[in-house]
Amino acid sequence: MRLEEEILKRITPDGEHRRFVDRVVSNLMKKVEKEISRLNLPLEARLVGSVAKDTYLPNPDIDIFVMFPPSVNRRELETIGLDIGRRVLGGEERYAEHPYIHGNYEGLDVDLVPCYKIENPSNIKSAVDRTPFHTEFIKKNLADHQKPEVRLLKQFMKGTGVYGAEAKIQGFSGYLVELLILRYGDFLSTVKSASEWKRGETLWLERRGDIKFNDPLIFYDPVDLTRNVASPVSIDSFSRFIYACSSYLREKDERFFFPRKREDWKIKKIREYFKKRETAVVIVRFDRPNIVDDDLYPQIRKTEESVANLLKSHDFIVIDRASRVDRHVLIAFELQSSKLPIAKRHEGPPMWIDHSKRFLEKWKGGKGLSEPFIDQGKLVVIAKREYTDAAELLRERIKTASLGKDFKGMGFDVVSGKTVFRKDYRKIMTDLLDKRMPWEI
Amino acid sequence: MRLEEEILKRITPDGEHRRFVDRVVSNLMKKVEKEISRLNLPLEARLVGSVAKDTYLPNPDIDIFVMFPPSVNRRELETIGLDIGRRVLGGEERYAEHPYIHGNYEGLDVDLVPCYKIENPSNIKSAVDRTPFHTEFIKKNLADHQKPEVRLLKQFMKGTGVYGAEAKIQGFSGYLVELLILRYGDFLSTVKSASEWKRGETLWLERRGDIKFNDPLIFYDPVDLTRNVASPVSIDSFSRFIYACSSYLREKDERFFFPRKREDWKIKKIREYFKKRETAVVIVRFDRPNIVDDDLYPQIRKTEESVANLLKSHDFIVIDRASRVDRHVLIAFELQSSKLPIAKRHEGPPMWIDHSKRFLEKWKGGKGLSEPFIDQGKLVVIAKREYTDAAELLRERIKTASLGKDFKGMGFDVVSGKTVFRKDYRKIMTDLLDKRMPWEI
Repeated sequence: MRLEEEILKRITPDGEHRRFVDRVVSNLMKKVEKEISRLNLPLEARLVGSVAKDTYLPNPDIDIFVMFPPSVNRRELETIGLDIGRRVLGGEERYAEHPYIHGNYEGLDVDLVPCYKIENPSNIKSAVDRTPFHTEFIKKNLADHQKPEVRLLKQFMKGTGVYGAEAKIQGFSGYLVELLILRYGDFLSTVKSASEWKRGETLWLERRGDIKFNDPLIFYDPVDLTRNVASPVSIDSFSRFIYACSSYLREKDERFFFPRKREDWKIKKIREYFKKRETAVVIVRFDRPNIVDDDLYPQIRKTEESVANLLKSHDFIVIDRASRVDRHVLIAFELQSSKLPIAKRHEGPPMWIDHSKRFLEKWKGGKGLSEPFIDQGKLVVIAKREYTDAAELLRERIKTASLGKDFKGMGFDVVSGKTVFRKDYRKIMTDLLDKRMPWEI
Repeated sequence: MRLEEEILKRITPDGEHRRFVDRVVSNLMKKVEKEISRLNLPLEARLVGSVAKDTYLPNPDIDIFVMFPPSVNRRELETIGLDIGRRVLGGEERYAEHPYIHGNYEGLDVDLVPCYKIENPSNIKSAVDRTPFHTEFIKKNLADHQKPEVRLLKQFMKGTGVYGAEAKIQGFSGYLVELLILRYGDFLSTVKSASEWKRGETLWLERRGDIKFNDPLIFYDPVDLTRNVASPVSIDSFSRFIYACSSYLREKDERFFFPRKREDWKIKKIREYFKKRETAVVIVRFDRPNIVDDDLYPQIRKTEESVANLLKSHDFIVIDRASRVDRHVLIAFELQSSKLPIAKRHEGPPMWIDHSKRFLEKWKGGKGLSEPFIDQGKLVVIAKREYTDAAELLRERIKTASLGKDFKGMGFDVVSGKTVFRKDYRKIMTDLLDKRMPWEI
């Protein structure tokens, strides 16, 4: 336990930090309660999340929920909730299932979220209504000696890049980490078990739910057995966590918790790599849609997938791809070749299908690069390819791909050839070429 | 019927030619009978084939069968049969199901074939024993006015390249042509019906056989209902005949019967074509195995198929291919490109499959062109390709492909790059590039 003890020292909030966090929470709660007292409504302020559960890593987010009686209609809840938040925090409006206020208080990130106070979590009116139940469940069930185990697992997931249920990461939420420790007992047992997880791994605490889920990982929520706590975990995060766990067991290293910084590759090195590989790169650069990350990342994934399909449907072979957001949204495709010959084999129907007459009419008399001929009973012609250059294809046809909805109206540029070897593209090129896992850097 | 009448004039043997053929047959029969009379066996000479049936085109082959009683054993039949043939014809020994003598007599090709004289064609001891029954059947059933129709259809099939059941053509036998005229009545009705044939078209005269065949065309032999007379017809000959028939109905032309000569393309034109297409060609040149055509052509097809699969399995895209026999056996492949980049996407198992550990061991630590990474839950690595040059692949690995058995020990050469633009390869390059049907030339 040598290494893990060292890590724990670095990630457990010390007495001074605890007192700081407690003071911040206490001040915020007082302010919220003061705002509540000015209203003629039975509202309640409730500290939830990792601070409430004492499973936080240093500099945690503070989550305070303002709980409304179910009799208040949704519109009123939102108006009053946001108003309280603004008065306490200033901050900015954000949107999950309904709007809330995000701000900063003495250097800590704070979310002030209105929700309904309900009796039974199976009657929730919005997803956030479940959170207070999760907090209560963990406070009641997680033993004090398990809290360091939660912290270790969170830091391990952060370091290996799978921590966070948000769309950007598609990984493990804090609550899921706590449930894993409850399920397996401690950090190392979790890592050992996870190293042997199979796709569709199904976990629960006392009772298993009845619903079948098709996710890579299933953990029935003990607070609401109809829900899979692990539903945000993507197949890639799931796989990467298995990979990280089995690598860690082979050789423990602090880099699993605190990976080294990945340096951007120099242009020269990038150019040399592509010369060595003999492949080509095309980058699509979109203007960045003005939407929150949880909306943006799914749209980037959809756009990346559709553009890859557009390339494939025109016979370009996509070897690898990467996306990245900076001032623009960049999507890069490594191709076997960005050029194809004009000649293409085009197979038609067999002679005994009615459609064969139309095929012959279309292609006879020098309209292709050959006359139609018969091969294995099928009509075939050597036809001219519509696009022989990948960049040209993307420039002219990207609008016909099913892009993320906010990408449809966006300006874009297609970068190819020598232009890709520019400082602006160092980061995405590094993503494409440097395939080391975070702990291998 | 204007065009068909003109064609008939050209293909019907005139009085003088008939007398010539009759004299040749009569002389040969006398010679055979004289040889028979010197033996103490009840043998019988029988004229079979198109001359016997009076459905021949000018300069026919003469087929004379020497019929043995079934009591003679096979070895004796062969020895005696060949001996008679040699005495009458000189000629050379050929081999179908058993050996026979092929020679030339007064300018006509002659086959002298020993067979068994049996009572019932379902008891045949060798395939050729059926031939006398076919001849008798046609002589009895084909009306005189249908003989010109048979001649027209034969010539049409010759002109369009589908006449002949031998392995080189994989087309329609003379007997099948006669059965088609019996089935449909005349030439034009056959052409009209055939233009609408579907794959698996099933025909018969009075009775249909019980056996199901999986051939493109099925015609139950009226003399032996367990046999499909059309079994030699390949899917390509079947398709081409449908194509020819429907084209002929659209515009009748003597070129369907007497196609113009296909000129070999000039090297300059071939070079220009490939420049225009932006594709590459690789030719495999084998020494010619010393075997008869009926053994050679199936082996060429098998070799062509296996080499194409070898190319495909190494990611080369085969656009088209052609084979040809001259002093060598030449097999040409038109490729999208004869070069591939060294980098290749290599997909491994998902992380949760046991085999993933071996994949990681194999590829970690710079053994590929990238470290292993995860995509859609699968392990992936950018690996080095084994062969980046199609010609090199063929040179080094062609022996591992499942070649025709007589190609396995043969010397071979792989021709690629500028070397393909040489006089020796004009014919096969023309096969590859000139895809006009014979009647379109």
